[in-house]
Amino acid sequence: MKLMEEKILQEGQVLSADILKVGSFLNQNIDIKLLAQMADEIARLFADCDVTKILTIEASGIAIAAAAGMRMGADVLFAKKHRTSNVDGAVYSTTVHSFTHGEDYNVVVSKDYLKSTDRVLLVDDFLANGKALTGLMDLVNQAGAELVGVAIAIEKCFTGAGDKFRAQGVRLESLARIESMTEGNIVFRA
Amino acid sequence: MKLMEEKILQEGQVLSADILKVGSFLNQNIDIKLLAQMADEIARLFADCDVTKILTIEASGIAIAAAAGMRMGADVLFAKKHRTSNVDGAVYSTTVHSFTHGEDYNVVVSKDYLKSTDRVLLVDDFLANGKALTGLMDLVNQAGAELVGVAIAIEKCFTGAGDKFRAQGVRLESLARIESMTEGNIVFRA
Repeated sequence: MKLMEEKILQEGQVLSADILKVGSFLNQNIDIKLLAQMADEIARLFADCDVTKILTIEASGIAIAAAAGMRMGADVLFAKKHRTSNVDGAVYSTTVHSFTHGEDYNVVVSKDYLKSTDRVLLVDDFLANGKALTGLMDLVNQAGAELVGVAIAIEKCFTGAGDKFRAQGVRLESLARIESMTEGNIVFRA
Repeated sequence: MKLMEEKILQEGQVLSADILKVGSFLNQNIDIKLLAQMADEIARLFADCDVTKILTIEASGIAIAAAAGMRMGADVLFAKKHRTSNVDGAVYSTTVHSFTHGEDYNVVVSKDYLKSTDRVLLVDDFLANGKALTGLMDLVNQAGAELVGVAIAIEKCFTGAGDKFRAQGVRLESLARIESMTEGNIVFRA
């Protein structure tokens, strides 16, 4: 998606070999024109999937999921992060390791809101090592729901995680795909 | 807003004198038709305010803010919660006490994303005691930005917090206003 690549080149900051800061347009401040285009593009890419539920993880995936949901007419559900295993009620739960914070956390959704009849599109802002995505897929599996696809705003292709999911047959689409990044030099996959 | 009141009556669960669970349509699962109507209504209510920035707080305010931003063409910014005071970079920061969790937390936004020229609409899912809202107003003040209004999905009128803000001259609009609530009996303000 051209506008996303332009924003990354203009405003993205490569803080380290692994970290791209996009707080000015995606992660804390959200450029609303970009968000609207992202929603249009996600709706176009998965138009044939009969999506009934868009599942994301708090917090930075929520705006993208909500915007896509508005375009697609599908309800949005966000999994919650907990530091401890004390989660109340009937929930699907999985453990995700965060490299950023160096700790494990639980990710949960209520069983009431994710059903075996759901056709689920996963949405997130970044795909790096794929741990969060694997966790969300686990929740979908636990619910017996069908995973119809994954929409990612920015994929760090150099980790290989995205291609691994694709090789497993996951329909994974990313709006910007970064092949390599160093300060002042971000290369997108063609 | 009629649809919001209907959803609260049909699906809301009064868990205690203070707590209304709306996870099935607003707080974890998001009913997309409701969200679209909420966005339309917020855009209508504040159409004359030249809003340049919609500020909310993670996580459950983000979807509402994103939807309203899409309708109003205004960027969305979400304040982050931190348990500790270790926040990096140049940020505006304030402390909010959570009654739900019984602890203080810091709320921060980057100085880069909230400017003195901004005309800010605050958005949140609930207004109960008003602590989170007071924190967000503090951030707006610190930035020297102008607070043009506050849009709340569900106001618990019985706390008096909303009316206190109104008496102070804040333009505060709520999409559903609960005058009183007990299990099986929710009364809206006319």
